[in-house]
Amino acid sequence: MKYGVLGTGMVGLAISNRLAELGHEVMIGTREPSKSGDKLKSKNESVQVGTFAEAAAFGEFLFSATVGGVSVDVLKAVGASALNGKTLVDASNPLDFSKGMPPTLFVTNTDSLGEQIQRAFPNLKVVKALNTVTAAIMVYPKLVAGGDHDLFICGDDADAKASVIRVLNEFGWVNILDLGDITNSRALEGLMPLWVRLYGKLGMAMFNFKLVR
Amino acid sequence: MKYGVLGTGMVGLAISNRLAELGHEVMIGTREPSKSGDKLKSKNESVQVGTFAEAAAFGEFLFSATVGGVSVDVLKAVGASALNGKTLVDASNPLDFSKGMPPTLFVTNTDSLGEQIQRAFPNLKVVKALNTVTAAIMVYPKLVAGGDHDLFICGDDADAKASVIRVLNEFGWVNILDLGDITNSRALEGLMPLWVRLYGKLGMAMFNFKLVR
Repeated sequence: MKYGVLGTGMVGLAISNRLAELGHEVMIGTREPSKSGDKLKSKNESVQVGTFAEAAAFGEFLFSATVGGVSVDVLKAVGASALNGKTLVDASNPLDFSKGMPPTLFVTNTDSLGEQIQRAFPNLKVVKALNTVTAAIMVYPKLVAGGDHDLFICGDDADAKASVIRVLNEFGWVNILDLGDITNSRALEGLMPLWVRLYGKLGMAMFNFKLVR
Repeated sequence: MKYGVLGTGMVGLAISNRLAELGHEVMIGTREPSKSGDKLKSKNESVQVGTFAEAAAFGEFLFSATVGGVSVDVLKAVGASALNGKTLVDASNPLDFSKGMPPTLFVTNTDSLGEQIQRAFPNLKVVKALNTVTAAIMVYPKLVAGGDHDLFICGDDADAKASVIRVLNEFGWVNILDLGDITNSRALEGLMPLWVRLYGKLGMAMFNFKLVR
């Protein structure tokens, strides 16, 4: 399976490097590859670099790891033809830093970024996942509590979710709870206000939640 | 310490009964006590019953356990003079069922119900707490995972939060994390979208989150 990862921030790099480490073919996409040298210093050498469009075309399975505010625009620039029929993990959050810290959400409650992406690309199989933890935990969940904590995912397509769960298992995730259709993105993105405050309170991002019952 | 509990739903009854069981003097407040017979069938016999105003006047320490949609109106009907200087635990959530299930929130993201109450009554010491778990867990946290899970609280007044933590300890809470000022209510109430979906997915309300790091 070839993977395309859109975005060269901490999240895009962490996912790309981890996929490469696991032996997969990966292309990371960025707006202007020629200007991304500094950002890509920590890139695994086997990860190829391309434009957003090249990475989307390369990958049979995609990760959206851009800043939430540009996720839909980046995918629109890529175009539906490179996306149709593929599975895309949306790991981004609709964070709005324009009102100061801590950030608010630019879509919430009655809609979500995950749903916006799904509506914009009806033939793309969007799975919301990984947005609730920091980049290192996304790809190395066992770094915290030996991996005994939970990841919540959602999406409309059962086969796409099954394929996402397989990749997450490769990353080390054991406790993965599928909440249902893509509207559950509201709940996953709705965790951000608590996450950012815990980050401020604890002074670090290496935490997650374990569902106890 | 005398306690006043506003609201005779599951939450108000659970808190009242638990306080009485712990040996405290408690009055539960309701709109029309003469019409509350059925609701109060499961009431501990030592819990007194009064109007909202009577319960607020009785209590030196108050719990707001009404449906979120009426919390501010009930307190306005009680009037600031019975509230000034007291500590009030706001255990309610701004759930809006008018758009169908699962409920949305009638205030979120840039404001919260906890803040609305605090703004309406500047001399009341509002502490947001307990809104993130079901009634039974609020007062018997050890029923789940032996109590090894987390309760998040917030509020502007340090002494009020210390007194709330003492009561929560009596209930059995061990892991209590004070997130900071009352604006953190946005984060606590923001957990509701995930909570209601987990409730639907798991088919039961006896769950909570443990913060792992």
